Amino acid sequence: MRTLAIPVPVTSIDADGEQSFRQDTVAVEDPLEIRIGRTRIAITMRTPGHDRELAAGFLFGEGILERPEQIASFDITKRNEVVLKLRRGEHAKNLKDSRRNFYMTSSCGVCGKASIDAVRAQGCGLLPPGFQIEPKTVQALPDKLRAAQPTFDQTGGLHAAGLFDRDGQLLSVFEDVGRHNAVDKLIGAEFLAGRVPLRERILVVSGRTSFELVQKSVMAGAPVLAAVGAPSSLAVELAVRFRLTLCGFVRKDRFNIYSTPLRVMS
Amino acid sequence: MRTLAIPVPVTSIDADGEQSFRQDTVAVEDPLEIRIGRTRIAITMRTPGHDRELAAGFLFGEGILERPEQIASFDITKRNEVVLKLRRGEHAKNLKDSRRNFYMTSSCGVCGKASIDAVRAQGCGLLPPGFQIEPKTVQALPDKLRAAQPTFDQTGGLHAAGLFDRDGQLLSVFEDVGRHNAVDKLIGAEFLAGRVPLRERILVVSGRTSFELVQKSVMAGAPVLAAVGAPSSLAVELAVRFRLTLCGFVRKDRFNIYSTPLRVMS
Repeated sequence: MRTLAIPVPVTSIDADGEQSFRQDTVAVEDPLEIRIGRTRIAITMRTPGHDRELAAGFLFGEGILERPEQIASFDITKRNEVVLKLRRGEHAKNLKDSRRNFYMTSSCGVCGKASIDAVRAQGCGLLPPGFQIEPKTVQALPDKLRAAQPTFDQTGGLHAAGLFDRDGQLLSVFEDVGRHNAVDKLIGAEFLAGRVPLRERILVVSGRTSFELVQKSVMAGAPVLAAVGAPSSLAVELAVRFRLTLCGFVRKDRFNIYSTPLRVMS
Repeated sequence: MRTLAIPVPVTSIDADGEQSFRQDTVAVEDPLEIRIGRTRIAITMRTPGHDRELAAGFLFGEGILERPEQIASFDITKRNEVVLKLRRGEHAKNLKDSRRNFYMTSSCGVCGKASIDAVRAQGCGLLPPGFQIEPKTVQALPDKLRAAQPTFDQTGGLHAAGLFDRDGQLLSVFEDVGRHNAVDKLIGAEFLAGRVPLRERILVVSGRTSFELVQKSVMAGAPVLAAVGAPSSLAVELAVRFRLTLCGFVRKDRFNIYSTPLRVMS
């Protein structure tokens, strides 16, 4: 079994805005490519471990495999790939249909560290210094986001993304069953209005932060991303690389900063 | 603006196992295909509304569009498609790279109702009657799942999927940053062990239920899917169609049944 969680250094902010430093632990997120022989079937961002089971369950769920006896072997490479070989005479079903029908969710990049380089290749520079916010502004964000999210109260089932200015004033909010969709809608509205890059803006999300959400923030040039939930390992890594201020577990009386704490006043 | 939430009939179970009937509201989930002219870029499961912004934000985040002035028009069809036309002389960048690099997450089906037919076409029959569980068994599931999830306590960042028998005995548990991955690992392990279909088993997930999770349960033949969070509209629709018992908001003292309540004893 591989490591499910890794330690990261974190700056914790308390109710009085006091900073302290400690080690926190984040869930590991890393890409996995699933192949049958040379045919590439899918790439998923997953927590390492049980990659055989993940590949088998995925392929069964897609109707590509029907019986475990079809599988001759699994080869797990060091390049985040799981490669299935089928027994002689066995064929993967629905492969063409299935490939056409996979849902694709946005995200650049593919293979671990390479995916971070891909963000850079898309023309993202480092996020600039100079924008600073008060700790109490951050702590007030989730309540403001929630108050602006009418459909969540009805259903309990929608993620939200909100855009705030330096003083914690809400500028826009979007809801969706998917976290990445809520963020795409928000950034898309700013993009269409000619307001990208989002300098001096705070992006707030209702859930956890993945690689994908950090990538979208970096692409849009937002210097601060604040989340109610936890970040993944790859979210932290990408934030550090591009100097995004990544806040997690944001509550009325505390929050953690996983990258670039300098933008939060001390 | 289109509807973000729709009413569904629900059976509520209280602490004494008493059933009551009412209307609940669930978040709408529906697929959207994003195209530039005839070129299909991506399909995402989203909550309808702000489809222009969603498409623009997605394409900007992928580095495919750089400036809003590149866009000549958006055409939103009745078939859940948003089709962009670019101005004369403008070209979509990174299109080939980007298509190769989209993360694909599993799920069959594409276009609304058609996606439900696709599950059927993959050979799924209706889930059979005959399996019944007690309300108190369901109410105890989330605590048992949480107790078996060591990494969550460290990170707050991992979803879990657990498999339980009729008496609420935990059979297996898997954790992952992605809900669908945790379920794929669980079903994959059962598949490899030759234990699929999962007759007389309860599948439990730590988060919300989407179309995708219901599809995986149905494919694996699990008659009951219980979630700590809310279901989406398409999750309920697919569950009703295949007679899956779909439970949501499962707590120590209550839960809701969104489909096929007959498997819960009254």
